Amino acid sequence: MPVLVHKYGGTSVGTVERIQAVAERVLAASRAGHHMVVVVSAMGESTDHLMGLASRITAHPDQRELDMLLTAGERISMALLALALGERGAKAISFTGSQSGILTDERHGHARITEIRPHRLREALNKGQIVIVAGFQGVSREREITTLGRGGSDTTAVALAASFAAPCVIHTDVAGVFTADPRLVPQARRIPRLGYDAMGALAHLGAQVLHARCVDLAAKFSVPLEVRSSFSDEEGTVIVDPATLEGPAVRAVALERQVAQIFLSGEDCAPGAAASALETLSALGTAIELLALDAESERVRLSWAVKESEAAAFALAWEKAEKPAGRWRLRVEGGRALVSLVGSDLAGDADVALAAARALSRAEIPVLGARAGSLAVSLLVPAERGEDALRRLHAEFVENSGGPR
Amino acid sequence: MPVLVHKYGGTSVGTVERIQAVAERVLAASRAGHHMVVVVSAMGESTDHLMGLASRITAHPDQRELDMLLTAGERISMALLALALGERGAKAISFTGSQSGILTDERHGHARITEIRPHRLREALNKGQIVIVAGFQGVSREREITTLGRGGSDTTAVALAASFAAPCVIHTDVAGVFTADPRLVPQARRIPRLGYDAMGALAHLGAQVLHARCVDLAAKFSVPLEVRSSFSDEEGTVIVDPATLEGPAVRAVALERQVAQIFLSGEDCAPGAAASALETLSALGTAIELLALDAESERVRLSWAVKESEAAAFALAWEKAEKPAGRWRLRVEGGRALVSLVGSDLAGDADVALAAARALSRAEIPVLGARAGSLAVSLLVPAERGEDALRRLHAEFVENSGGPR
Repeated sequence: MPVLVHKYGGTSVGTVERIQAVAERVLAASRAGHHMVVVVSAMGESTDHLMGLASRITAHPDQRELDMLLTAGERISMALLALALGERGAKAISFTGSQSGILTDERHGHARITEIRPHRLREALNKGQIVIVAGFQGVSREREITTLGRGGSDTTAVALAASFAAPCVIHTDVAGVFTADPRLVPQARRIPRLGYDAMGALAHLGAQVLHARCVDLAAKFSVPLEVRSSFSDEEGTVIVDPATLEGPAVRAVALERQVAQIFLSGEDCAPGAAASALETLSALGTAIELLALDAESERVRLSWAVKESEAAAFALAWEKAEKPAGRWRLRVEGGRALVSLVGSDLAGDADVALAAARALSRAEIPVLGARAGSLAVSLLVPAERGEDALRRLHAEFVENSGGPR
Repeated sequence: MPVLVHKYGGTSVGTVERIQAVAERVLAASRAGHHMVVVVSAMGESTDHLMGLASRITAHPDQRELDMLLTAGERISMALLALALGERGAKAISFTGSQSGILTDERHGHARITEIRPHRLREALNKGQIVIVAGFQGVSREREITTLGRGGSDTTAVALAASFAAPCVIHTDVAGVFTADPRLVPQARRIPRLGYDAMGALAHLGAQVLHARCVDLAAKFSVPLEVRSSFSDEEGTVIVDPATLEGPAVRAVALERQVAQIFLSGEDCAPGAAASALETLSALGTAIELLALDAESERVRLSWAVKESEAAAFALAWEKAEKPAGRWRLRVEGGRALVSLVGSDLAGDADVALAAARALSRAEIPVLGARAGSLAVSLLVPAERGEDALRRLHAEFVENSGGPR
């Protein structure tokens, strides 16, 4: 009997009634002839509630103890789901991340999975039990409880699917991946099939339905991945090998709000100052978008975009860092948004970037920066024009082109 | 540096503010020169809240999954206490029952501790860390999470104290052990020192301050045990080897409500029917109080008291059980209360039982059953006269005798 991995997010298990609905859904998949492995997040607001308790106690919590605290959340939701399945006559058994053999490194709060040893899960599946696994958590070689950070439960699900060579269905509160956020663009349509690469780019550029990390993992192990709603039986979005896809170049548009632009300039620099500056940036470990570089012999100008929440920390880190020779000046401009066209084979297509800039220009939306890559064309615009820019790009590149097939 | 075990119950860690107060108390004991091992229960109502969620899902929960669910509670309180200690500059680290090496048998919901392997706790203490341990929980040899049932956190604390040859201080919401429940008997006084045996009898006979199981364990391993309030610095009650105590014979009075009396009679019995009936009762595993037996050659009459909540289950089990030869009849009378005088060397003292019965008789309280043992004299009275009986026995045997020293 084939193994199937289901994952249910916090909203999907947010109340007793929803947990009961999840039990019915899992049971249906089990009766349809699958060995079920079900990964669950903590119930709805419970993680926020626990974080709230911790923040009333300390502003600088120890990460190990924070992991101990937060992992209580999945323990509750998985046990309740097991009880709900038991009440329906099914044999179900829940396992913590540690019991599931999800081994991680030692980085509390954002651990990486290093290995999966799902012996107990296999045993339980062989006994005909429905297996429920706590998402988001693992155990280090020192037997410390760790959490995987953002997108952690999705990552648990995909990693288990890879380990069992099984497909993975991520259940969430939306019906799949759309050509744009339907709350912002009413014309947005569900994308039936999407490549791992485009999905990864979308996730990276602001689409919240899946975390880039779990998409990358699915691509690496060719895990068949589907995103669908846990509240309806609608078809979702299937994420596949891009080589199997045909269709329009542009698949979706995405908006990332609260972006800051950073300008760094150096005067009287030594030769190679640009490369040195880039090395310093890389050592500071910030995710950098839309890097623009303009260098002469003794003068370097760099600009790029970061999340607004990270800008101040970056400025402070730059202040403290050992800098290349020369006089350096850093300027941070907040109030930006990043709009992106995501698809495939966009790199060679200068027309896409140009057409996008023209579309925004016609609407008198200033373009403050741009990057054209193979999977995405991104444009930096003033924050207050972000939604408008998103709608115009969707109209131009998705609605007028017939959209995804 | 000597090890000291502190235990804090659910009320003591019921809010963030109370957890902060516990942190201060633990820190003071640590600064006074102790290696601290701190056992905590789940926060206040959290166990009831989790049980409530489970009961909305199923009336017959799987015990394994219930244990998985409930153990989330201590995980939260212990991590928060560790954070509160960290915030105060202390090195603190929390461990689950499993990480603490608390091995149990497989009986989910009421597991027994079989062994303690506190390697990780020892390591942490040697590093100068304050160790926080989740009460009430352990792990079986099959690596299943178990809970210890009623009085579980106290039992964890005493077992760890035994393992470290350390004293144990149980912090609760009352200032120690009293000569009677002060809510019922305003004249009740704190007992400064009490023997393990009398404390065990008191716990067994309805005093709720400590569970009999943890007292028995403390007696077995001669763990110096103290009960005190977590809300004040008042002295508490020290539980000691009874051989070191002098004082009045009667130390305290206790009331157990909601007691049922069971009458079992057999006619046309074979010889030895009484012994056979007792064996059947013993096999049914019910805790029996005040057994009265009256047997002739072919006729047996037994009567005893049980908790009202267990009476129906007992009647059903008796119905199904294989009975000795003869015609047997079972009758259950609810609405009883059990009042007890607890102390030491009461066995040979027929006067105590007689004086107790006379005191109740003067107040026209019917005595429906009685037993005089070495540690306690217990009397069965109508439920609605229980409190009155308690006050009269306290007046007669505690207040008039000068009370405990």
